[in-house]
This record gives sequence, C-alpha cells and structure tokens, in this order.
Amino acid sequence: MKRRSYIWTTVILAALLIPAGYGYVSWSKSGAGAGLYSRHWEPEPAFSYWHPERFYDSVDTVVGTFEGQQCVTCHEGATPGIVKDWQASRHAQPAEGQPVYCSACHGNDHEQLRMPTPAVCGTCHEQRVAELEDEKRFGFPSHALAMERVLDAKHFVDKPKAEVTACLQCHSVATKCDSCHTRHRFDPAEARRPEACLTCHSGPPHPDDETYFQSAHGQLYRRHGGDWDWSKPLAAGNYPAPTCAYCHMRNGKHQVADKSIWKFGIVQVNPLTSNNEVKRQEWLAVCSDCHEADWSAAQLRGLDAERKRAWHPLHTAEGILKGLRADDLLHPAAGERPPYPADGLDRIWPRARIGFYEGQASAFYNVSPIERDYFEMWYFDSLDAYKRAAHFAPERTDEAHGRLEQDLRALQNAAEDLRELGAREQRELGGRSIPGEFWNRGAYTDLNRERN
Amino acid sequence: MKRRSYIWTTVILAALLIPAGYGYVSWSKSGAGAGLYSRHWEPEPAFSYWHPERFYDSVDTVVGTFEGQQCVTCHEGATPGIVKDWQASRHAQPAEGQPVYCSACHGNDHEQLRMPTPAVCGTCHEQRVAELEDEKRFGFPSHALAMERVLDAKHFVDKPKAEVTACLQCHSVATKCDSCHTRHRFDPAEARRPEACLTCHSGPPHPDDETYFQSAHGQLYRRHGGDWDWSKPLAAGNYPAPTCAYCHMRNGKHQVADKSIWKFGIVQVNPLTSNNEVKRQEWLAVCSDCHEADWSAAQLRGLDAERKRAWHPLHTAEGILKGLRADDLLHPAAGERPPYPADGLDRIWPRARIGFYEGQASAFYNVSPIERDYFEMWYFDSLDAYKRAAHFAPERTDEAHGRLEQDLRALQNAAEDLRELGAREQRELGGRSIPGEFWNRGAYTDLNRERN
Amino acid sequence: MKRRSYIWTTVILAALLIPAGYGYVSWSKSGAGAGLYSRHWEPEPAFSYWHPERFYDSVDTVVGTFEGQQCVTCHEGATPGIVKDWQASRHAQPAEGQPVYCSACHGNDHEQLRMPTPAVCGTCHEQRVAELEDEKRFGFPSHALAMERVLDAKHFVDKPKAEVTACLQCHSVATKCDSCHTRHRFDPAEARRPEACLTCHSGPPHPDDETYFQSAHGQLYRRHGGDWDWSKPLAAGNYPAPTCAYCHMRNGKHQVADKSIWKFGIVQVNPLTSNNEVKRQEWLAVCSDCHEADWSAAQLRGLDAERKRAWHPLHTAEGILKGLRADDLLHPAAGERPPYPADGLDRIWPRARIGFYEGQASAFYNVSPIERDYFEMWYFDSLDAYKRAAHFAPERTDEAHGRLEQDLRALQNAAEDLRELGAREQRELGGRSIPGEFWNRGAYTDLNRERN
Repeated sequence: MKRRSYIWTTVILAALLIPAGYGYVSWSKSGAGAGLYSRHWEPEPAFSYWHPERFYDSVDTVVGTFEGQQCVTCHEGATPGIVKDWQASRHAQPAEGQPVYCSACHGNDHEQLRMPTPAVCGTCHEQRVAELEDEKRFGFPSHALAMERVLDAKHFVDKPKAEVTACLQCHSVATKCDSCHTRHRFDPAEARRPEACLTCHSGPPHPDDETYFQSAHGQLYRRHGGDWDWSKPLAAGNYPAPTCAYCHMRNGKHQVADKSIWKFGIVQVNPLTSNNEVKRQEWLAVCSDCHEADWSAAQLRGLDAERKRAWHPLHTAEGILKGLRADDLLHPAAGERPPYPADGLDRIWPRARIGFYEGQASAFYNVSPIERDYFEMWYFDSLDAYKRAAHFAPERTDEAHGRLEQDLRALQNAAEDLRELGAREQRELGGRSIPGEFWNRGAYTDLNRERN
Repeated sequence: MKRRSYIWTTVILAALLIPAGYGYVSWSKSGAGAGLYSRHWEPEPAFSYWHPERFYDSVDTVVGTFEGQQCVTCHEGATPGIVKDWQASRHAQPAEGQPVYCSACHGNDHEQLRMPTPAVCGTCHEQRVAELEDEKRFGFPSHALAMERVLDAKHFVDKPKAEVTACLQCHSVATKCDSCHTRHRFDPAEARRPEACLTCHSGPPHPDDETYFQSAHGQLYRRHGGDWDWSKPLAAGNYPAPTCAYCHMRNGKHQVADKSIWKFGIVQVNPLTSNNEVKRQEWLAVCSDCHEADWSAAQLRGLDAERKRAWHPLHTAEGILKGLRADDLLHPAAGERPPYPADGLDRIWPRARIGFYEGQASAFYNVSPIERDYFEMWYFDSLDAYKRAAHFAPERTDEAHGRLEQDLRALQNAAEDLRELGAREQRELGGRSIPGEFWNRGAYTDLNRERN
Repeated sequence: MKRRSYIWTTVILAALLIPAGYGYVSWSKSGAGAGLYSRHWEPEPAFSYWHPERFYDSVDTVVGTFEGQQCVTCHEGATPGIVKDWQASRHAQPAEGQPVYCSACHGNDHEQLRMPTPAVCGTCHEQRVAELEDEKRFGFPSHALAMERVLDAKHFVDKPKAEVTACLQCHSVATKCDSCHTRHRFDPAEARRPEACLTCHSGPPHPDDETYFQSAHGQLYRRHGGDWDWSKPLAAGNYPAPTCAYCHMRNGKHQVADKSIWKFGIVQVNPLTSNNEVKRQEWLAVCSDCHEADWSAAQLRGLDAERKRAWHPLHTAEGILKGLRADDLLHPAAGERPPYPADGLDRIWPRARIGFYEGQASAFYNVSPIERDYFEMWYFDSLDAYKRAAHFAPERTDEAHGRLEQDLRALQNAAEDLRELGAREQRELGGRSIPGEFWNRGAYTDLNRERN
C-alpha cells in the first residue's frame, strides 16, 4: 500500500510540476528581451535587424500600403543602393513567373513592415530552411542554435549592451538569412564564396578566416577565386580548390553540423565512436575529389593526434585549478562573487566552477584571474590550435601548441604565487585578506548595469 | 595714472614678446630637420621622399636640362617600371591638350630635380589640394596635419632614426600626394579602392584595415570589388557596397576630418553637441544610400554607448595612477626621468603626466612601466574597440572590450604590487630605493642618440 | 724522430676516424625517420607527401600497370579535381610533343607509385632544379636546406608528432616542388603570384605575408594583381609593382639565397663585407626598375640602421642572462634539464646555452622561462622588426621596435625577480630550492614521447 501512495504522489507531482515548468519557461521567455532571461533585459533599437521576429518595430514615418513597382520607385531615391542590388537579383528577373517585389518579404503596409526571418524566406526556399533547422539535432556549435545559445546564457543579461551588439550580430545567423546571403542581391554565387562566412568566422572564437587563407587551399582561392565560375553548384570537380562551403556545404546543403567530429576542439570527444566514424567517411568523400583516400584518412588521424596533444596541457591546468580550489586559494570564490541577476539558485547554492568542465558560461566573467587565464587557454588558444590543424595552416599549428605550453607555464607560475601569498597571509594575518572591492562588485553586474 | 602705466607696460611687452615668440618659433623651425625641434635632429637620406620640400636633394649624377619626350626616352631604360605607369596614365594621354611630362612635376634641370609636394599637384588639381588643406580647421586626427603632428612631438627628436623612418612614411600623407595616388599612374580608380588607404590605416594605431575587411561591407568588397567599375565617382548608388572612400570621401571630397565625431575614440567627446549632431546628419545621409535612416541612427547611438562603455575602465585606471602618484609610488617620477633634449622647460619645471589627460607625448616613452601599460590600454586597446565598433567588425568588438577589462585587472594587480613594494621599502629601508639605471638614463634619450 | 711519430699517429687516426665518422653519420641517417636522428623517430602516415623519397609508401589497393589515358580515365571518377587541373595544364596540352601523363611522374605500377621529388621534376626542368640546389652554397635560411634543417635539429625528435606535422608541411619545400607549383596545373603564372609563397611565409617565424601586403607594393598587388598578365616572365617592366618572386626570383631564377644580406635579421651580420656589397648592387638593380638608385641605396642603409638599432636591446638582454647564469640563477640549468634523447654528449657534458649565440636549437625548449622569453624576443620580435622594415610595412616597423623595448623591460623585471628570489632563498633556506618537477621532466621529452 505504501508503494502505491509513492506512485500516486509522483504522478500528481509530475502532473503539477511539468506543466508548471513549461509555464515558467514560457513566462520567462515572454519578456521584452528574448530567451530564458527575457524579463531581465530589453533590446536596443540597434539590435532590431538581428532578431527581426522579436526586436524589429516597423518604421511609422510613411503611411499607406504599397506593392510591386510602387516600393521600387520611391526607394530608388530613398535608398538607391539596395534597389540596384535587387534589380540585379533573380528576385527582380526570375527565370519564370513574376518578380519577387519588396512587399513579398517586407509586407505591404508601411506602418507594419517586417524584416524577413528564415520562415519568410522558407515560403519559397523550403528545402534550404528545413536543412538549417535540421542542424538543431546535432547540438551546439550549430548555426540554427546560435541565437538561442547567446540569449540563454546567464552572462548575456549582465553584459554591457555595447558588447551585446557584437554578440548578436554574428549569432543572428539563426534568425535571418542575410548573414550569408547579403541583401538584396541574394545571389548564390555570392554566398558560395568564403567571404560570406568570414564576417563571423574570424578572430579568436573561430579563426577560420585566418587559418583557411593561410592554407594551400586558401591561397589557391586568393590567387584564382576571382576567375572561377561561382554560378556552378558546390559539387565534385566544379571548383579547382575547396572553399568553406565546398567542404562544409557539399552540394549546397544548408546543414553544416552533421559532419562535425571534433566540435571546434573545445569539447574533448572520442573521435572513434561509430557516429564519428560515419562522419569521417563523409569527410573522406569530400577530400577524395582531389586527394588519395589513404592520405586523407591519415590527415584525419593527424587531427585526432593534434587534439590528444592539446588536451594534455589543458588537463594539467585543470588539475592545478582544482588543487587551488581545494586549498581555498581561488578568490573571489563562489559565494564571494555577485550572482548573475538572473540566477536565484546561485544565491542559495553558490558553486565554484572551472572552465568548460564545470560550467562554461561562468568561466567568462566574475571569476578569479587565474580561472580566467585558464578560460583563455582552453577556449581561445586550444580552439585556435584545432582550427589551424583542421584547415591545414601549417606554420601556425606549431605556434599554437607552443602557446598552450606557455599558457600552462604562466598558469603554473600564477598558481605558485597564489600558494605563496596564501602561506604568507596565513602566517602574517592568520587567515586570508578581504578580497578586493572590484571583483566583489563585479565588472559585469551592478557596475555595468547602471552604465548600460 | 598708475592704470595707464600698466596698459603701456603691457602694450610694450606685447610689442616685444609677440614678435620675439614668432621669431623664436621661426628660428626653431629653420634647422636641418623640420618642425619645432628642427635644430635637434637631421633627416636621413632615406627620408627624402617623405617631406620633399624639406628633405629632398636632387641627384646630381646627370647634368643638363631635359623636357618632354627626352626624359621618357632615357628613363625607359633607366627605370622602366615608372615609365610604363606614366604611359598608362591620363597624364600621358589627356582627354585634351598636351601630355603632362615628367618635367612638369619634377622640373627640367637634372641637377635641381624636385619631388612634387601637394602645392605642385595643386597647380592643376587646385580644388582637391584646397580640400586637403581645409582639414586643418578640424584639428588632429587629420591628414593635412599629420606631418606637423609627428615633427612637433618632443619624443620624435629622441627616437632612433630607424623608427622615425616608419613614422614619416605614413605621416608624409600631408606633404605629398602619392601616399594614396600611387605614382606614376595616378588613376583615381586606383585611389578609390580601400587598399589605397590601408598601407597606413592598419595595425594598432588605426586598425581600419582589419576592422573594415572583417565587416559585411568589407567582405562584399573582397568578393566582388575586382568587378566593380572604379572609374565611377564615389556617389550614391555607384557602388554595391561601401569602401573607405565611399563613406569618408563622399563624391571624392578630399576632406576627411569634417565628419569626425568620436575622433578615433582616443578623446572623450560629447557626441551630442550641436556640432556633432550636424556631423551625425551627414553620416546618416551616407548610410541611407542603402539602409533605413532610423536603423542607421540607432547604430550611431550604439557607437555612443560603445564609447561610454570604454571610458569606464579607462577612468578607473586613470584614478589608480593618480592615486599612486599622490602617494609617490610612480618611479621614475617627473624629475627623475631625463628631460627630452628639446625641452628646457621640463628641466626647470618637471611635471608628471598621465596619459592623454595630462600630456599625450609624455606617455609614449620615459614613463614608469605602469604608466606605459595605461598608455597601451588607452591608446591601442580602446582605439581598437572603437574602430571595431565603428566599422561593424562584429566578432572583434566584444573581444576588444574584454581586453580593456583585462588591462584594468592587470593594472590593478600592478598597482597593488607597487603599493606592497612601497610599504616594504618604507618598513625595511625607511624610504624608497634608488630607481634603476635603465630608466634614469632613458632608453630613448642619451642611450639611443649615441647609437642613432 | 719524435715529430715523425706524431705525424704518423695523426695520419693513422685520421685514416680511421674520418671514415668512422662518415660511417656513423650514414648509419644515423638510415633509420625509419630521416636526418641525423632518423633512428630516434618514425614518420606518421600523414607525413608521406612531405618527404616523398623517404616517407611515401605506394597505395596497394589497385593492382596493375597503367599508362597515359588509362590513368586519366579512371581518375576522372576517383579524384575529378586533380584530373581537371591536369587537363588544364601544359603537361596535358604541350606546345609540342606528347602530353606528360600521370605515369611520367608517378610511375606506372599502381603498387609501386611514387610522389615526385625535385629529381623527378628535374628530368625535364633541369635548370630550375639546379638553381634550387645551388642555394645550398649560401647556407640557411634557404629553401634547399629547409628539410635538412628541421630533420637534423635535436628538438625535432622530442617534439610531439602533432606539431611535427606543421614543421614538415613548410620545410618540405626542399623535398618536393608542389609547395609553390600547386599540383596538378603547375602553371608558372600561378607560382609567380605572391600567394604561392604565403602558405609558408606568414606568421611569426617569417611574417612576409603580413609585411608585404601592408606595404605600398603589396597594396598595389591587392588592388590590381588580378588584372596583370601573369604569363609574362618576372623581368623589368613586365609588372606594375613588385611581388615576392619579382624581387627574390628575378627572371624566374629558382635561387633565392644568393641575394640575402641580413639573413632574416636573426644573425648579426656585417652588412658591409665585400660579399654583401655585391648583393647590395644586385638589389639596387631590382629597385631601379622603378626607383632612383640613390634613394634605393638610402633605403638599404636604412635597413642597416634598423638592424643596428634592434641589436642593442638584444645584446642588453643577452648580457642580463649571462649575468644570471654566472650567479647560478637560471634554473633548470644545464644538467638539471633532461638531455635530448638523441644527444649522448649532453649527458656527459651538459652545457648551458643562451639564444642564438650559444646554440639555437637549445633555446626553443627545455630552458628556464626567462631564457625562453629571450628566445621569443630574439627570434620572433626581432625577426618581425626586420621583415617589417625590409618589406616597407611602415606602421608596423615602429611598433615592432617598441615591442623589443617592452621585451627588454619585461626581461629586466624578471631578472630582478630572480635575483630577489635567489637572495631570499639564500637567506631563508641557505641555498636554492628544488626546481619544479615540470621542467625537470621536460614538457618536450619523456612526457610527450609517451603521448606521441
């Protein structure tokens, strides 16, 4: 009888809590902002294009409904640049049927204009949008989840708006199509070229620009790319050297996440799971357009070795940090740091977290200097080493590993300093000194919010 | 009666001192070098092209006067590259009238050749040179004042010649026209392309290259720029994406300083003065070639926010340094550092100066390490953050602000070290130790001069 | 009589030892790897293309001998990319005679395929390969010695294979021709363009990419290079601006080492030896295609000054390190470090070596932190300063010298810390503490080998 009452309690609690949970999340997402923390922040007017569905408010300076050539006539004077682009596009000169006029995408009521989302583009380009959506099955990193990932990060709420601008600009790849298909020409020939990717895929978090263009592949593109026939589909033999899309978007497939084995190098994966073996075969099919399959397979095993090599200093560094924490030498420690405003749980149960292993978001901000150094090592330097190796940027791979070693050395030095300081404080003060005002207030919390 | 004598004394003193001042400055500028400190240094032969009016001495290996085709005939053998360039230029094939031969710009006496200054080019291209000169009204940063700015800086005199070479090369934009209009083709189509700007506008002091080419604007140029018709003027609708000159030199106007609101981000300005509101309208007119005016205005407000955000860590850092100075913890302090050789006043009245606020030039060299760190933070890192935001280099803006926070953290650590060291010295030595030889002698003063 | 016995002893010893030495070296080189330490390591399958003579094993998945069109027919399906490249090449469509089919270079037995070495290419392109080989007379840096240089370095053996991958990729320029002549088109027009060089010539060890493209020369190429006629030989007047090959491979000569005066800036040379004066004249002949000879000579003297300037902080730093070593403050010192596995002599006679002066290879790894900092300063930062100046990258030269000064300051600070630490250890412990485990085990020795 007792057992049955447990079952009933569980069923009743589930029946109450699951809908309550859904309700809470739904309520959370219904604020002025977007994402899980939408009630804690508001978008700026500058953000409007980047999440058109949530952030865009129509201009109301012009009244009336307009269609077809009417929009064009007026905008030839108002914004000539984009009209010329549209006129040169297939939208204006379709192979068959009527032109796709402004109103098809933006609506025709000038007080209720919209900026097109993938759903809008998907009314005609159904397959491509479906492929993009399909990325979600593979988790992050992926384009389709990019906006969610940023909006649902706790530190996003605390971040100064001036910096959020930068985040949203790239992560908007999930919420609109013109990140790659520059408006208003939308020529696939344009999106096939590597530059379409590089506005976002450059710099420390994803140095694809730097690494591709340093490779023999990239140098071939730099030399001859201007003369290639970009109207051809991304199929075997159509291009004399590979580009971003040639390898990652084979035959134009808008699903980039399904071949990802090493996940940017920031997660330690087992490259030899059966799942990853399947992906490996897909990569080999691409490489074999030009290379011996055996040799290509050896290169992929080279990437396994590169990652194995990179995780050694990372694990050593992680061990050092855990040792410091065990000896109460990481300050501000959990509980000394201001909790994220969005996170009531952190107030009740403060947790110390190191790097990716124990909580990615928490490693960006509001951590002690040595934890931040580890973050840099893990996120930027290790990722860089991976991208260099994966894109065959020869000179730079060696350099990147040298940097990981230097990071580790610096971390070891800093750890020794912390241990010495701790010993001295114990000796001279009988305990540790009060941590500095700066970190307790938090550069990214109260201080910034008041200046945002 | 007493009052009248004051007036007379003032009048007489003014009558003596004002001309004496002018006379002194004029005498100062008449040395072998150029600028206010011309009597303290001499140009190297390698500098000759960069300030042709002051530094160029004609070669005297060929005797005689030559004109027109005569120069061409001989130089086809001697320097074929530039002759081919000239032959392809409008100077060689003008729409009407006679060709502009070598002698028109260089003179015809081979022992008295000159390298053309803007004044020489201005004999035909009057309006463009007048526009350049007009920049001077707007102060620095400006092209027209670039050479003055470098020549009149105290540290210029102390700097090793090998480094001055680098300074002069870019700052010569004020003293000759071929910084942008590469000799000897001088095709406007060439100067319109962003590369004309990027020889100088790249790297830490003005990362326009890096930031423009990372933006969607720059990526469009990278993809398609080779196919655009560069013979078209820089007017609305003529180009599918903006370039340096498209935005900054609208309709080819050679006056780049008049739209400058945030001044490279190195000066804290009020962006909302009526003056700056006027400039803002001019920017909006440019953006509206392609973008909604409302959205563009929001982007400009975004830049206001970015600067506001950047000045917070900068002000904090400045406060830390002032505190250290008040407690006599900045060494070498003013008076301990070797004065610039050019500066008698510094010998009599040594002043400590922090960063831009209290004296820009003094922050480059001959300061204590922590002051130099502040300089790096203020000048390079903050400027970089601004340029990234202003040119819409999305990924990099966030990173740059992260760097400013890291700079501040490092500065705070260094300040704590200095305070601890000061306390220990007080305790153990009853005062501070003698500052190191290195800084007292000065890496950029006596030591370098003897090796120059 | 005594004298005669000395002579005989010497003769007999020489007769025994010289062949023994040759024998030892020959035995050393006959291991699974390559180079002097070939018995201490094995190549990975991923390395196979990079030293085809030593590392390449034919695929054995296809049996039979094939010739001419047979190979093409099958590979049109198997590896369409390279077949298309070959079809567009002069090999497929020679001006006269028969096509050069796959088998001419790769052999015709599919179980005994080879990847072509310079010797294979040299059967037709005799002069070019002879020119490459001729580089060896001029020592390193040179292309022809690149592979030897890396294989014969002690630290190469200890290096993780994942990093060796990166080394070999560039250094394979000595052992195969497709580093520059991208397979399988092999169009000289392609190899003439700067991108052919930049896969390797970029990044810290040889920032030619970064410095050339920042110069006025490079910006001209960026703007117009796409429109130049690259089928023309690299001769005076054929190109409107210089490229890597235009200056360094005049008239297509495949000998790049014979004009090298400053040797990458990493060796302090006397630029005024008669030998270097001859090289200077050759440079002037190149510059004079476009520039006044006097002015060009002044630029070369500017480079002398730049190097003189750079060696000042380097010498100061070297002096600091020698002082520390004399006072037993460099740890791990020689003898505390693990010897390279290849080096029995180091076990018997451990030597401390600082930077280039006392042993280049030893400065990369297994040295104390401050020695490594000096290495960075000497190798990367000074080399960078040189390349910036030599390629006329104006903005960056000044910055690079600023960095050398900062390096020196950091080194001075670190040296003071070491001295203070040493004094404290002497006072408190009566000697120095046991050096850390990390360096004694050696990140690049036992630890890495077990993970390789």
